[in-house]
Amino acid sequence: MSNSSGPWSAIKLASERKVFRELQSLEMATSTFWATYEAKAPAIEKVDVEYALGRVLAEDVFSGIDVPGFDRAAMDGFAVTAEDTFGADERYPAKLKVLGEVEAGDAAAYSASSGEALEIATGAPMPKGTDAVVMVEYTKRNGAEVLVYRPVSPGENVTGAGSDIMTGELLLRKSQRITPREIGLLAAAGIARVSVFRKPRVAIFSSGNELIKPGNSLGFAKIYDVNGAAVAASVAECGGEPHFLGILPDDYSTVRNRLESTLGDADVVIASGSTSSGPGDFFYRAVDELGEPGVLVHGLTLKPGKPALVGVAGGKPIFGLPGYPTSALMIFHVLVAPIIRQLANTLETSPVKVSATSPMKFFKVRGRRELLPVQLITLPDGEFIAYPMQSGSGAVSSFSMSDGFADLPETQEYVDEGERMEIQLFGRELTPPSLVAIGSHCVGLDIAFTMLREGDPDFLGRTINVGSVGGFHARR
Amino acid sequence: MSNSSGPWSAIKLASERKVFRELQSLEMATSTFWATYEAKAPAIEKVDVEYALGRVLAEDVFSGIDVPGFDRAAMDGFAVTAEDTFGADERYPAKLKVLGEVEAGDAAAYSASSGEALEIATGAPMPKGTDAVVMVEYTKRNGAEVLVYRPVSPGENVTGAGSDIMTGELLLRKSQRITPREIGLLAAAGIARVSVFRKPRVAIFSSGNELIKPGNSLGFAKIYDVNGAAVAASVAECGGEPHFLGILPDDYSTVRNRLESTLGDADVVIASGSTSSGPGDFFYRAVDELGEPGVLVHGLTLKPGKPALVGVAGGKPIFGLPGYPTSALMIFHVLVAPIIRQLANTLETSPVKVSATSPMKFFKVRGRRELLPVQLITLPDGEFIAYPMQSGSGAVSSFSMSDGFADLPETQEYVDEGERMEIQLFGRELTPPSLVAIGSHCVGLDIAFTMLREGDPDFLGRTINVGSVGGFHARR
Repeated sequence: MSNSSGPWSAIKLASERKVFRELQSLEMATSTFWATYEAKAPAIEKVDVEYALGRVLAEDVFSGIDVPGFDRAAMDGFAVTAEDTFGADERYPAKLKVLGEVEAGDAAAYSASSGEALEIATGAPMPKGTDAVVMVEYTKRNGAEVLVYRPVSPGENVTGAGSDIMTGELLLRKSQRITPREIGLLAAAGIARVSVFRKPRVAIFSSGNELIKPGNSLGFAKIYDVNGAAVAASVAECGGEPHFLGILPDDYSTVRNRLESTLGDADVVIASGSTSSGPGDFFYRAVDELGEPGVLVHGLTLKPGKPALVGVAGGKPIFGLPGYPTSALMIFHVLVAPIIRQLANTLETSPVKVSATSPMKFFKVRGRRELLPVQLITLPDGEFIAYPMQSGSGAVSSFSMSDGFADLPETQEYVDEGERMEIQLFGRELTPPSLVAIGSHCVGLDIAFTMLREGDPDFLGRTINVGSVGGFHARR
Repeated sequence: MSNSSGPWSAIKLASERKVFRELQSLEMATSTFWATYEAKAPAIEKVDVEYALGRVLAEDVFSGIDVPGFDRAAMDGFAVTAEDTFGADERYPAKLKVLGEVEAGDAAAYSASSGEALEIATGAPMPKGTDAVVMVEYTKRNGAEVLVYRPVSPGENVTGAGSDIMTGELLLRKSQRITPREIGLLAAAGIARVSVFRKPRVAIFSSGNELIKPGNSLGFAKIYDVNGAAVAASVAECGGEPHFLGILPDDYSTVRNRLESTLGDADVVIASGSTSSGPGDFFYRAVDELGEPGVLVHGLTLKPGKPALVGVAGGKPIFGLPGYPTSALMIFHVLVAPIIRQLANTLETSPVKVSATSPMKFFKVRGRRELLPVQLITLPDGEFIAYPMQSGSGAVSSFSMSDGFADLPETQEYVDEGERMEIQLFGRELTPPSLVAIGSHCVGLDIAFTMLREGDPDFLGRTINVGSVGGFHARR
């Protein structure tokens, strides 16, 4: 049983094993998670090769066939018995009887004896009794005969069966990510289905009585849920399979029952907006009571990490994110995304980052690490500048203009004008605006931007509202 | 009517408008294409927002609602009539009667008059008659009363209806690529479906009587088709929707009929392995006879570009690629991929490239631009080296080890040891091997690699066969 007298100070009275009086650093939270969570052998599924692009092989793949499966001509020319050509030269060419022609793919049973030849195309099977190909350049066709002006040795210009890939040869190794090249290689061996790691199934909840799923009608006092959709898309980008399971009400037994029934199917559970106050207690208690070890971390020593929750129950990782969309995505990226990438076996654990400079001096929170949302602008020379956005704001309009965030250490007190920052992007793709107007919102600007785009389909304009810090930045 | 006396010398006798005696440069071929092809307005389709990740908006999106849709509390505290608090301070607090509590999402019709207050949670709707929120820190609850120690002005700690997003406000612009952020923004406005540009439908054929589709059984003289699958995957990577339509036989009327029926549905047609000899004539003639302008370019002044074909018929772009897989993918990347990306409106036209150095001196073809397939190896310092692979080889084993290609200009005669080359990758993802053994193939090495991987799941080993150029490169 657990008792939480407030979101940051839950104390497990019965066992006294867990005390959450203190927030943890992000690194500590991550290592606590990995020290506790026993990752199961990743599930495997068979997929058609044509849908395998970007997936990761779950087993070594061996060729079941020789490639090519038969001796074949490597050049256009005449299939001959090499011995018939020994000693041939310009003055004394070998004279052979031409029995016919063999094209690539021709499965008829051709054969030739000494003194005979068949015209043959690159890729065609060698006729029985022949062991070399004389290139067409060194021959002269003369009715039913061919003159051969150069000798060939046995095997010359012939690609032997299995010389490219042998039956039983290792084609691809387990853990290889499948690109167009791997798809081609599987095709060469005739393989149409492969075993790949199943994407981790990530169950996503939002929490709050005021939330309505987009597409439904919005009653008084309600707002549309932003996090469900944005977190689901972010999960997809880092290799998970998102399942948005709806909005949790502020009711303990419903929250507990829904979490419990989810733990059977999902590999990971994420809830947002549910860990900071009243309803957060429900989520906290449900995670902690659903099974050992329950809640591992509640609150991170960074802004905006206080509402973050890390737990394991029923052998499944469970995460709680803040309710404000920008905060939810930042905590998702620093805390949850690396774990999902690892579980997805994508072999690719680095987030997408760009380097940018600050256009002005500004102060961060003192003595605390801060994740600061920024808007990126491309300058004419291709460099990025990063405008800080209002942090910790629930405004969707501010969320909509944040391209990513800077991770500013505890020891830093301010960011100087021109200082370089590393910005982690919110999405794997970025389309910074061509022209940004900084100031208060103006309908006339919307119209001007629309007119500029009529003349240039690639034009993208955007407005930032930062009060007194005015200015224009153009990249064209 | 056209007459082709050979693949490089087709002359349109009837009109004498077209003479293909000369190969064209890649740049010339591309500009000839764009000068001729009249791109239609891209088709548009509606998709659910949850499946819209990575797609490109086909129209401006405006909000149909105010966000929030009602005046709401921006802080936890008490909803009051601001006037009631004027003059309040520590010694003379305002005393108000508490009528109840309002939680976020609570749609009941609360109201308060002068002298009354309601306890209110962040996000909850302001009760009728109240116009400000006093933060809980500046109050003291006393049974059915609350003492207010600080005045608030009208609107203080209240988020007004429509202050975040206004009805009719432009949310997202046409041509914006949809990332998790855009998905969140659409959700905020309650939008569940959006119009996006349809991905261009790319019909893909392979050509040759010897080819069999992977997954089917392989008769004598047949080999599995590699290009169909590899080109389809490459089309998907650059934003197209691939439709592999099978293998074209070496038969003119079948080729022409299949091309003709495809032109109705497809936005782009690609055939590989069909333009270099016998059967290539069929493809060439079919493209040229299906409609004006027909074949535009036949053969590029680069190795291995001779079999490449660019045409337009029925208003659709048609491309012919070489038959060898490595050559087919290289020509796809330099000739076709930029056009598909443009048609896909992805706003992202740059291929994925890395910088690498050559581990040895080698000569390229003289006086001709050459696309040279390379294998990349990561050194311990993170730098890449690029081993040249046998160019122009049909070997699948060589294809399977090529990570990308260098584009070496006509004027260059050799690549020096240590010289830096820019390598365009065959896939958007790259997993260079940890350890590469260079030398002849050895079954013992396969076993050793497997054992190394047992101890380290991330270990990826690979073997290159380059004959006399031996050596080992390890990155760990």
